[in-house]
Parts: sequence; structure tokens; C-alpha cells
Amino acid sequence: MNLVFTEKHTENVGLSIGVTRQLYSGQSEFQLIEVFESEDFGRFLALDGFMMLTEKDEFIYHEMIVHVPMAVHPNPRNILIIGGGDGGAVRELCRYKSVEHIDLVEIDEQVVQVCKEHLPTVASDLDDSRVKIHYEDGLRYIRRFTDYYDLIIVDSTDPFGPGEGLFTKEFYGNCNKALKEDGILSNQHESPFYPLDASAVRQIHKRVITSFPLCRVYQAHIPTYPSGHWLFGFSSKKYHPVKDLDCQKWEELGLKTRYYNTKLHKASFALPTYVEELIREVE
Amino acid sequence: MNLVFTEKHTENVGLSIGVTRQLYSGQSEFQLIEVFESEDFGRFLALDGFMMLTEKDEFIYHEMIVHVPMAVHPNPRNILIIGGGDGGAVRELCRYKSVEHIDLVEIDEQVVQVCKEHLPTVASDLDDSRVKIHYEDGLRYIRRFTDYYDLIIVDSTDPFGPGEGLFTKEFYGNCNKALKEDGILSNQHESPFYPLDASAVRQIHKRVITSFPLCRVYQAHIPTYPSGHWLFGFSSKKYHPVKDLDCQKWEELGLKTRYYNTKLHKASFALPTYVEELIREVE
Repeated sequence: MNLVFTEKHTENVGLSIGVTRQLYSGQSEFQLIEVFESEDFGRFLALDGFMMLTEKDEFIYHEMIVHVPMAVHPNPRNILIIGGGDGGAVRELCRYKSVEHIDLVEIDEQVVQVCKEHLPTVASDLDDSRVKIHYEDGLRYIRRFTDYYDLIIVDSTDPFGPGEGLFTKEFYGNCNKALKEDGILSNQHESPFYPLDASAVRQIHKRVITSFPLCRVYQAHIPTYPSGHWLFGFSSKKYHPVKDLDCQKWEELGLKTRYYNTKLHKASFALPTYVEELIREVE
Repeated sequence: MNLVFTEKHTENVGLSIGVTRQLYSGQSEFQLIEVFESEDFGRFLALDGFMMLTEKDEFIYHEMIVHVPMAVHPNPRNILIIGGGDGGAVRELCRYKSVEHIDLVEIDEQVVQVCKEHLPTVASDLDDSRVKIHYEDGLRYIRRFTDYYDLIIVDSTDPFGPGEGLFTKEFYGNCNKALKEDGILSNQHESPFYPLDASAVRQIHKRVITSFPLCRVYQAHIPTYPSGHWLFGFSSKKYHPVKDLDCQKWEELGLKTRYYNTKLHKASFALPTYVEELIREVE
């Protein structure tokens, strides 16, 4: 048997990964959920045929979406994650003793159940006593909060399918309202390389900048995402992602990370010229 | 017809690119040379089945291997490129008026001829009057020079096949000897992500650090190279790649680049923790 999982990055470009077995396949109310096992990437989760995470490189995405805002905010205690039912962002957050409460809003309960069963190294902290999971649409959940969270992490899927509402102006406006006056929002910001992905970057960025006074884009290398070049957004009402970073304070926490470090934190906001131009187009 | 070019990044992982036509295929004395045309990456060159460059993302590799050392050296006039028969590094160098002479040492004349004919936007400056092409083995060429070059760019293929000699200790020792006392060497340093590629990183780095007092690694996003995460080496006898960078001086040259800029230059030396660790293993 020779199973191959192929994800199309464009109509004519695909990344193929040899699969040793399929661990799970089920259609939820929202999407097709699959978990595979592979030699090169360990286990991986796909939603509607798109790779969401692999055991081998998920640390990059989760460390960068969590530790960048966490290292900037002086006292992040009350945190909201929208999406992220796999538990990767929760796991990174739970490493901070200062965190008092995490609301995880995941529309698809089945994603959480499947990850708990088949991706235990990712979902490891979903049962932490500080975590409350809400099976609800993030777009609706966020409407009822004002001046409440220190940090919101938008760990969404792509801007089509069940996550579509998380790419609207209304959503980012409500995130701003739900954050305290020194709150921070981090979100996945898509990839700048392929033209269709670059359109998504423009679309997200345009919506975020209308809702936040400060919005900067940072980058990371994520091998299993299209082009391997991935962007994140850092938006805030008060803090600057580089000027307000207290390296020493973060280093004193003693958290062991595999991708993130404070030098890289600062460096990740220096973008290639073509990415700078892409973002400036909508600013 | 539905042509697909697939490059294996590991035994079980491959990047596939739909091809509209094959423009050239020929076996030289050294390797199989092919040029294809694709919708997503324009034309691309493959040697022995491995992608060397595509029209759509070659700017990243060539800007980073050239402009990083060029922005640090205060007066680079006499330059050696080993490999690089496609002409991409030559093109970037020829944009500097200060450059007086470029020796390009390419073992395979047929690569140069094929690129001139089929990849004219890359090979555009191979006929510049400052460029002299030597069809010779770089390992042998370098032996006869002492205190001669300001900058050596090692634009080699992977550490197997005809480029193998360019990954030896002898070669880097001779590069050091061929450089002036304030000379700089930049080289492609492979990818840190997949285990076999990471071994190549260790192997190259180990050899470079025995020959140069200062050696730093920097990174870029190159979508068509394995994992999309690519490393370069900056080695020198005198200059530090970040402390000795004169941003203003470089910016005053007015060179338009699409990936490189001086902020990114500094940032590209901040590596993810796992890459830092990989490099420190051999230091």
C-alpha cells in the first residue's frame, strides 16, 4: 500500500506526504475531519482536505501565535482563543503561571474530541482547570463582551468554509471592543507568496487595520503551509510588539521553546520588501 | 496532457508543480540539465531532477546571497562566484557600480549556455564586460589565489554530485587564503528542517567554522526549496554581518530589491531556537 496525502497550494502546485495510515475520518456538522500518520511529519490533522497541523511542525505556528503577544503584554491573565480546537495554542498558554483563565471558542466539538484522542501531544492541556471550552461560533460569541480580555488569539482556518466569519470587519471590531484598553490581538494572517494567498493577506489586513490603532505583521517558517512562508498579525490598542517587549522578563520565566526566542521575536517583524509592499497596499 | 514535475524533499515528501512544457533537456558531461515552463513559477531549471531556481522565487535566493555580504563590505571590487552558472548572482552583483571584476567559476559550460537561451531574466548580465567565466572545477580554481578577492560567493548545488568538492574543509581553507584580509565569504548553507538536510547544515557549518574566525548563519523563505526554510552562511576575517552593516550607505545606492532590505538583513541573523541549537552542536 502506498498512501499519499496531497494538498494543493495552487491549482497546479501540491505538497505530497506519504501516509502510513489513516487514524480517523469523519464528517462533522461543519467539515470533514481527518487524522493521518506519516513518517516525516508524525500525525497530522486535515480539515476539508487542508492540513491544519502536523506533530513535527505545529510548534512553530503555536509558539509564534502565543509567545509573541504574551511576551509583550505585561500581565496577561484573561485570554480568549477563537478557533484552535486542536489545543496547541492552549498548551502554549498553559505554560504561563500568570494566566488565570482561558476561554476557547471552537465551533466544532468534534475537532476537539478527535484531537484529544489522536493528537494528545497537541491537545494535552485542554483539560487544564483554567480552560473553558465553548462550542459556539466565534463571530457570535465575541459580540457580548466589552473591556474584558487581555489577549485574544484568532487561531482560525482559512477565509473560506466555517471560519469565514472570522475574516470580517464586524468580527475584528468586536474583538477590539472585547479587549481591555491595553489588550492585544494576535491572528493568523495567511501567506504572502502565491497570488491567491496574497489576496487573503490583503483582505485580512484591511479589516484588522480599520479596527486597531496599531497593527504589525510578523512572519515564520512553517514547512507544511503553502510556500512555507506564513504571516501573523499583532494588533493592539497600546503596546508596540517590539518597543514594549521586555526580553529579560520573558527569559526569566524559563520557558523552553523550540522556535520562539526574544531575538527572533524582534526579527520576525522585519519583512521582505515584497511583503512590506503587499501590506502597505491596503494601509 | 498533464505534465507534473515532482521533487522529492524526503523519501516520502514531494513538491509537485504542473508543467506546461519542457523547454530543454540535455545530459552534459556532469549532469542532466532541464528547463520547464510552469504557470505558478514561470520557467525553472532542474539539475539531475533537483530544482535549482524558478523565475518566480529566484530573486529571494540571489538577493540574499549577494546583498548581505555586499552591504557589509565597505568596498567590494574584486569578486569570485563559485558555481552560479545560471547568472542570478552575477546579475545582482552587476547592479553595483563599485564592482570592477567578477570571476565566475562554473564547472558545467552547458548550464551557462542553457540559461542564456532559456532563462534570459536570470542570465541577463553574463555578458557584462566585468564578468569573466571560467569553465573549471571551483575546488581546483581556488587553490592558486592568495590575498586576492574581496568577496567569494559559493553558489553551489547540494553536497552530492558535481558540487561535492565545494563542501570540503580543503575548499573553505583555500577560500580563506584567496580572500583579502577583510574578505567575506557567503555560501548556501542548506535547510535546517528535514533530518537529512539538517545533517548537511551541520556538515557545511563544521567545515566553514574551522576556516574562518567569524561565521554566522542567516535565513530566508524560499518556497521551492525543501521546507521553504533556507540558510546561508556569512564568514569573514574581519567584518561582523550586523555590527558592520552601514544601512544608510546601502540605501543611498538606490538599488530596488524585492526581498532584501537592511532591516531584514539584520533580522535574518536571528534564528529559531532549534536552528541555533543545530548550529551550536558543531561549534
